Amino acid sequence: MWSASVFTLYPDMFPGPLGQSMSGTALGNGLWSLEAIDIRDHGLGRHRAVDDTPAGGGPGMVLRADVLANSLDARLAADDPRPRLLLSPRGETLTQKLARRWADGPGIVLVCGRFEGVDERVIEGRGLTEISIGDYILSGGEIAALTLLDACVRLLPGVMGKLESGEDESFENGLLEYPHYTRPREWEGRSIPDVLLSGDHAKIAKWRRAQAEDLTRARRPDLWAARETE
Amino acid sequence: MWSASVFTLYPDMFPGPLGQSMSGTALGNGLWSLEAIDIRDHGLGRHRAVDDTPAGGGPGMVLRADVLANSLDARLAADDPRPRLLLSPRGETLTQKLARRWADGPGIVLVCGRFEGVDERVIEGRGLTEISIGDYILSGGEIAALTLLDACVRLLPGVMGKLESGEDESFENGLLEYPHYTRPREWEGRSIPDVLLSGDHAKIAKWRRAQAEDLTRARRPDLWAARETE
Repeated sequence: MWSASVFTLYPDMFPGPLGQSMSGTALGNGLWSLEAIDIRDHGLGRHRAVDDTPAGGGPGMVLRADVLANSLDARLAADDPRPRLLLSPRGETLTQKLARRWADGPGIVLVCGRFEGVDERVIEGRGLTEISIGDYILSGGEIAALTLLDACVRLLPGVMGKLESGEDESFENGLLEYPHYTRPREWEGRSIPDVLLSGDHAKIAKWRRAQAEDLTRARRPDLWAARETE
Repeated sequence: MWSASVFTLYPDMFPGPLGQSMSGTALGNGLWSLEAIDIRDHGLGRHRAVDDTPAGGGPGMVLRADVLANSLDARLAADDPRPRLLLSPRGETLTQKLARRWADGPGIVLVCGRFEGVDERVIEGRGLTEISIGDYILSGGEIAALTLLDACVRLLPGVMGKLESGEDESFENGLLEYPHYTRPREWEGRSIPDVLLSGDHAKIAKWRRAQAEDLTRARRPDLWAARETE
């Protein structure tokens, strides 16, 4: 079974939103598993300290290398085959391709940073790969971990029902999705485009493709360019 | 007070992880407010249906324009000044700059998509701006909404304590952050770089700047290039 182990200072944030809807049903049905491990269990002293001031000065606090390493070592077997990812704005940016790669594997180990950052030496010493979910700063890695897990879990076999789509979606083919319409046919003077009501499947497919291409060119010239060079 | 209204089919997902840690404390202290509104309250018929099959065929279900519009109209005043954002992989990509702009405003209205998508006519008819948190597919807009909220809320006045940093962070200056170190000085044969223990603040600042630049060039040539053209 695909399994996720999350190292965090806020274990109560998990499964959180992943306990509901599609991923929650899949969790209940044993299609994947999730454990949240409290880094503070390996904190130091009476107050279970996990952080300290940055060497060289500056604001914030840094998660200690020894504390995080002890937490990881206590819970992960040396031969655990799962990638060890540290959620961090300095990391490689998450893409649908990466989500698919991890969903195809045995699971993932996620480390959630907090404070100003994590001591660089534990990143090197425990082979953590830094992953970012986007170019913005969050208060910690927990919501980023939920995001990454959601992206992976929906791709696991059996998680998406027959009614949901696993293909034809934004990014899988390098294009943004075409616009969607459903009943009623007329709404506030706006109609469903005639072609979608024509019953002509070839024409509909062509219209959708053209819409997706136009949208991608207009909104995401970067995606469009990347597509042409592939 | 900065206020967020979230339209969703899963209101129990809110505040979720935002009810803890920094954002949770700020929520408790009245530094921001959050309401989650169940779109299904405006669903149709005995089963409160909110979706229907896509015009033109294809997999999945589409959120109806009339249902979502009725939900928005019932809860938002016509002169509500907050931007209306629809979480969608087709949208403009969230950046730190956008988070800061919204944090500086009166709040935000967030609409969480589910199923295959949302009827295009309600996006146009209610002036929704599509926003994406990254180039990957999630099972719905809820976790994306939590991400966007976290990015905004930590920037609100009074939310970050004196111990946390609001500056010098990744993306605010177009660079990834330099590496962090804290006690102990030696760990598993790895030392804190001497310069950080020198007490020479000018030298430390120079070293950190060089590290941030090297890291950005190596890991994110796109950010580095964008920085040079600004």
